[in-house]
Amino acid sequence: MINLRERGRDRLPTGERGYPPPMRATFMYGAGDVRVEDVADAKPHEPTDAVVRVTLACVCGSDLHPYHSLPTTDDGLPMGHEFLGVVEEVGSEVTGLAPGDFVVSPFAFSDNTCAFCRDGLQTACVRGGWYGVPGIGGTQAEAVRVPQAAGTLVRLPPDVDEALLPSLLTLSDVYLTGWHAAHLGRVAPGRTVTVIGDGAVGLSAVLASRRMGAERIILMGRHPARTDLGREFGATDVVAERGEEGVAKVRDLTGGEGSHVVLEAVGHLPAYEQAYGVVRPGGVISRVGVPQYQQAPVGTDSLFNKNVTLTGGPAPVRAYIEQALPDVLEGRINPGRVFDQAVPLDRVADAYRAMDSRAALKVLVRP
Amino acid sequence: MINLRERGRDRLPTGERGYPPPMRATFMYGAGDVRVEDVADAKPHEPTDAVVRVTLACVCGSDLHPYHSLPTTDDGLPMGHEFLGVVEEVGSEVTGLAPGDFVVSPFAFSDNTCAFCRDGLQTACVRGGWYGVPGIGGTQAEAVRVPQAAGTLVRLPPDVDEALLPSLLTLSDVYLTGWHAAHLGRVAPGRTVTVIGDGAVGLSAVLASRRMGAERIILMGRHPARTDLGREFGATDVVAERGEEGVAKVRDLTGGEGSHVVLEAVGHLPAYEQAYGVVRPGGVISRVGVPQYQQAPVGTDSLFNKNVTLTGGPAPVRAYIEQALPDVLEGRINPGRVFDQAVPLDRVADAYRAMDSRAALKVLVRP
Repeated sequence: MINLRERGRDRLPTGERGYPPPMRATFMYGAGDVRVEDVADAKPHEPTDAVVRVTLACVCGSDLHPYHSLPTTDDGLPMGHEFLGVVEEVGSEVTGLAPGDFVVSPFAFSDNTCAFCRDGLQTACVRGGWYGVPGIGGTQAEAVRVPQAAGTLVRLPPDVDEALLPSLLTLSDVYLTGWHAAHLGRVAPGRTVTVIGDGAVGLSAVLASRRMGAERIILMGRHPARTDLGREFGATDVVAERGEEGVAKVRDLTGGEGSHVVLEAVGHLPAYEQAYGVVRPGGVISRVGVPQYQQAPVGTDSLFNKNVTLTGGPAPVRAYIEQALPDVLEGRINPGRVFDQAVPLDRVADAYRAMDSRAALKVLVRP
Repeated sequence: MINLRERGRDRLPTGERGYPPPMRATFMYGAGDVRVEDVADAKPHEPTDAVVRVTLACVCGSDLHPYHSLPTTDDGLPMGHEFLGVVEEVGSEVTGLAPGDFVVSPFAFSDNTCAFCRDGLQTACVRGGWYGVPGIGGTQAEAVRVPQAAGTLVRLPPDVDEALLPSLLTLSDVYLTGWHAAHLGRVAPGRTVTVIGDGAVGLSAVLASRRMGAERIILMGRHPARTDLGREFGATDVVAERGEEGVAKVRDLTGGEGSHVVLEAVGHLPAYEQAYGVVRPGGVISRVGVPQYQQAPVGTDSLFNKNVTLTGGPAPVRAYIEQALPDVLEGRINPGRVFDQAVPLDRVADAYRAMDSRAALKVLVRP
């Protein structure tokens, strides 16, 4: 007997529609097959859970990986991991949160107290986990169960200007994933930064690098609407060429020395190869594009002889939210500009299509 | 017409033996084939060169790589890159050095003024290079031509106690290569450090980690005489097991969390695999064993999902000599204990054999 609840979807038994109260949520049934369905309303399973009614969600570039490759499944994969919302219910052990609180959630939940969380690596939390995997619902939905709610959710001002919501939503993942790349890359004044990829994460990495004081930011990308936004975010140079030609261009722009920091926001092997081609001896390659390869060059010719550091991984955005929040609330940055479309929840499949075809950079989903 | 001088050996023409004054130097003619031969005495080629009469040299673990795999050659490869010696002659543009100065040389020469040198990465010096390659003589020899002498050589006290010479010689490479690993690994008080490899570099990495304040140092090695010295250098635990068994043991010793820092001092792929097996999420793998592989796992399962940083490369020992010198001169550390044998120059082939068979850890060569 399969426990549907453990697959994070609580499918409604036939004839019982409406009890418990249903909600709409997004599932993927295979490559290119995204559906919105009725499921049982989210509710706490553990005393450390909360339920949050979703105000605003979105589609992530990483959602396109299963959109390209998910094998057909009868169960459906719950989708989405970014959201703002209002707390509806809290478990008996949830402290610091009450129904009615407006909150942002990192894309990974965490207790924020374990040894890894104390180190600022909430994505390695011993009680942590991810939305949109079996057992935990996705956030492209009307409501979400949030495990480890006290450690995970960050309260926002209740009266925030609606125009700020897209930027606040980027604190759930995309802006702070760019920030993580720049942070691990040790971006600082005087460092030349090259960002590979003009997707929403790459553009966020440009914005974060600028915020950290980088004066020279080279954006490698070939979609003018995106690289134009990259320039507004702080890119000083745009290199449309790829591969060896792109490497030569960046080396040329850096007086032959290469780039102190390379932020790799794509995840495919050619982007990695580009990264070690443009990095300066002694420099850092920081990856936040989820690598779609397991093996890659790391020997004398690629990394070792140049003393290049390779770093990166899933961003512990929980560690960065409080620091970034004033920048957004006080208007110093506007990372929400990466959203160029919005759809109602029932049309989320259109959002996937638009992002997949590059008609949209990143799409808001309004339940 | 081949210019013998450019191959760094200045072979004596037949019938001219004795003019210019000959010296003895070491060449490798193929795997396992090490010979000491008469060559023309070292002399300056450029106004930035110096010539140093070698007081003490040694064989490096990295010399064993060609000892295993060098294709047979008629020319011979000049060998050796570590030495102490006395300046004999300086070119017209060499400042700060005079004949009679007692000096130590990093294993790579550098101008110590270019952009990379100013960043502390002298192994990437734009005017730098390596001993023991065609065009530059090796240091397992009676004398050595030192390019970029003013930037390269560091003066030592003229009256230094002879008992300190082996430790001073480790500032040429081995101790400071261990130091470089620990430095890039961000070893500090409170960090657990795992050192993979009980060769002279691994043991130096233990000593450097202790000097940087690490309290918990796990040494992975299986040669009791070496791991015993490792304990004297500061290792708190020794793990003789390798592969999965070794990984399980280290994870067990670290409460299941893994090691904050892993210093990889071997260079073979199984050591790298061990490294990502034992490293803690958010930790650092720092490699100073020259990788004998070009490709390796770097994807979600090995590095990325754990936010592991991979760093390392040829040590810019020039950057560290002044800092380490007082530790040696004042007896706080005794890294020269990695030398457990000594041979006269004419018996250098015995040194290679002894290190290759592990009968010796590291062998001094006295011209």
